[in-house]
Amino acid sequence: MYIVILAGGSGTRFWPVSRHSRPKQLISITDGPTMLQRTVDRILPMKPKRILVVTNSQQAKETEQQLAGYRTKVPVDVLAEPVGRNTAPAVGLAATIIAAHDPEGVMVVLPADHYIRNEVQLQQALQLAIHSARNGWLMTLGIVPTAPETGYGYLEADTAMRGIGPFPVTRFVEKPDRATALAYLEAGTFFWNSGMFVWRADMILQEIDRHLPELAGPLSRISFGDVWELGDLAGQIEQVYQTVPSVSIDYGVMEKSDRVQMVAADIGWSDVGSWSALAEVVDPDQQESVVVNCAAYINVASSGCTVSGNGGVVATVGVQDLIVVATADAVLVCPRDRAQDVRAVVEELQQRGLNRYL
Amino acid sequence: MYIVILAGGSGTRFWPVSRHSRPKQLISITDGPTMLQRTVDRILPMKPKRILVVTNSQQAKETEQQLAGYRTKVPVDVLAEPVGRNTAPAVGLAATIIAAHDPEGVMVVLPADHYIRNEVQLQQALQLAIHSARNGWLMTLGIVPTAPETGYGYLEADTAMRGIGPFPVTRFVEKPDRATALAYLEAGTFFWNSGMFVWRADMILQEIDRHLPELAGPLSRISFGDVWELGDLAGQIEQVYQTVPSVSIDYGVMEKSDRVQMVAADIGWSDVGSWSALAEVVDPDQQESVVVNCAAYINVASSGCTVSGNGGVVATVGVQDLIVVATADAVLVCPRDRAQDVRAVVEELQQRGLNRYL
Repeated sequence: MYIVILAGGSGTRFWPVSRHSRPKQLISITDGPTMLQRTVDRILPMKPKRILVVTNSQQAKETEQQLAGYRTKVPVDVLAEPVGRNTAPAVGLAATIIAAHDPEGVMVVLPADHYIRNEVQLQQALQLAIHSARNGWLMTLGIVPTAPETGYGYLEADTAMRGIGPFPVTRFVEKPDRATALAYLEAGTFFWNSGMFVWRADMILQEIDRHLPELAGPLSRISFGDVWELGDLAGQIEQVYQTVPSVSIDYGVMEKSDRVQMVAADIGWSDVGSWSALAEVVDPDQQESVVVNCAAYINVASSGCTVSGNGGVVATVGVQDLIVVATADAVLVCPRDRAQDVRAVVEELQQRGLNRYL
Repeated sequence: MYIVILAGGSGTRFWPVSRHSRPKQLISITDGPTMLQRTVDRILPMKPKRILVVTNSQQAKETEQQLAGYRTKVPVDVLAEPVGRNTAPAVGLAATIIAAHDPEGVMVVLPADHYIRNEVQLQQALQLAIHSARNGWLMTLGIVPTAPETGYGYLEADTAMRGIGPFPVTRFVEKPDRATALAYLEAGTFFWNSGMFVWRADMILQEIDRHLPELAGPLSRISFGDVWELGDLAGQIEQVYQTVPSVSIDYGVMEKSDRVQMVAADIGWSDVGSWSALAEVVDPDQQESVVVNCAAYINVASSGCTVSGNGGVVATVGVQDLIVVATADAVLVCPRDRAQDVRAVVEELQQRGLNRYL
């Protein structure tokens, strides 16, 4: 079993902790290991043969450094895309490499920047998916929804008469409006699209060949040596990325394939899309405060604050539902319900040429 | 003319920039020189003979360091009180020292932690006060009020038929309530008590002798050498402070003396009592933001914020009338109208034993 970690994200919504050179997956938004490292940690007990991490050239060095400590336990390869082309080319490249050495090898595709509270349940769900993947299915993990989320895509599955699954996926749906999300939650047949997939390398390549021939063509022309010396592929990867389309594996393959099944996963999952989601990851205190990276949080008549410090003290007096984030060189204050607007801060920094804070 | 600067304050309302070891007068709440240094800077053009700074033993070293650069221009003495006893003992001690060398020397008493926008007007007002002080009056500067302030003490003066003054002071009044403050503002005969005084050393000692004999006694027993070697006095000062009463010069002498006159001063004065007063010192921008110590302030849909950074970026999104202060190891967020409650933060730090942040 091979792990493929998609780690090329470049989100701005965790500014000022996340920066261009250190996007979400390369930071710890709580304490301790980074999100990338946690992604590896939670999968290591499943004893993968290798880990392939697909990132981009700007982040490759930091990614290598963060994973250096794991190389005594499992071979780790870091592939740098010369340019981001969404997930289909990244998945296709990883599958091509695995298939060159082990055509029927099962690959587990994991985003590097999600949070999963129940690691044992994750491993069990993946194990079920691996069984089905060996039989040729394209497996996806569907998260059992706990709220009418409008920020996630959904899968609809045919759950009737099938026990604990796996279930055939009947359709993929984009982010719904609130009313639709409520209907999904009540229906019980809709699941959050987690972006976690399991399949045989040869099977996903067969489906890419069918549904994305403009990607399959360039990938099929990559030639391999006998060893896992992926550094030798850099020139060929450069070539491939000059022509491949920018498309997600969901839209490009999964929505069109008739070989897709789903394992339901109730695993305490969050994509931690912004500072306001920190409350899904860290248990709030009695004043509904969520506090990380502080020597102390001094709360005078405040409630509902999300606080990420720079190791020292953060104090709030008489404020409600604010996000307060401090780093060595930047501070952010923003209401919890405007966490998405952190993007606007990053845009203004860009416009004003304040690159050292980006 | 001698300058006596009262620099022994230990306020907590500018936390986290001010700390026990660096109270308000020893920090810059804007940019550049500290409040103590600004106090010296604005008086230097008046060519004082000497500057005596009265502080306490914990702050003496830092005070010496901040004033070291001025010694090429004017002799500077730093006196360390072994224990704080309000302003009357500090003033009396300075007057005793000056009188020992120059009995009719005029001393100008200045608090070290006030802000004055119009320095030329200050110097002119002091010059007028010095003229009257030479004739034996105890002079005080009364600030022409610009708002019905409830946080200041007031002087009432007999301004009728006296042109630009000086004016006899008819009474001292404590901090008024709002209605009274409004009446004071309309009356035109009330002024803010600035804590700035001008008198001859022998005259204030004479009044201390009359109204505060328990202070005058110990002071009169201090013996001096022929030179300004104030370090030699440490032992005697220690003795004096074991018995002197803790009382302000206003309450202990000025309110009781019939030799008090006032010069009206319209000098852009503020005692900068809390973070909310920063708006009196720094010009707000179009969003009513007041910003100091920032490489940049990124304002997304915010207004009325008071921002003191740690040299980097501060960003606010969709918040109004907040104080945001960052230092290397601490962050404060507080509504402008609760700036007084910063005190509660300091108290909690004390209770929790977080002394390194005090």
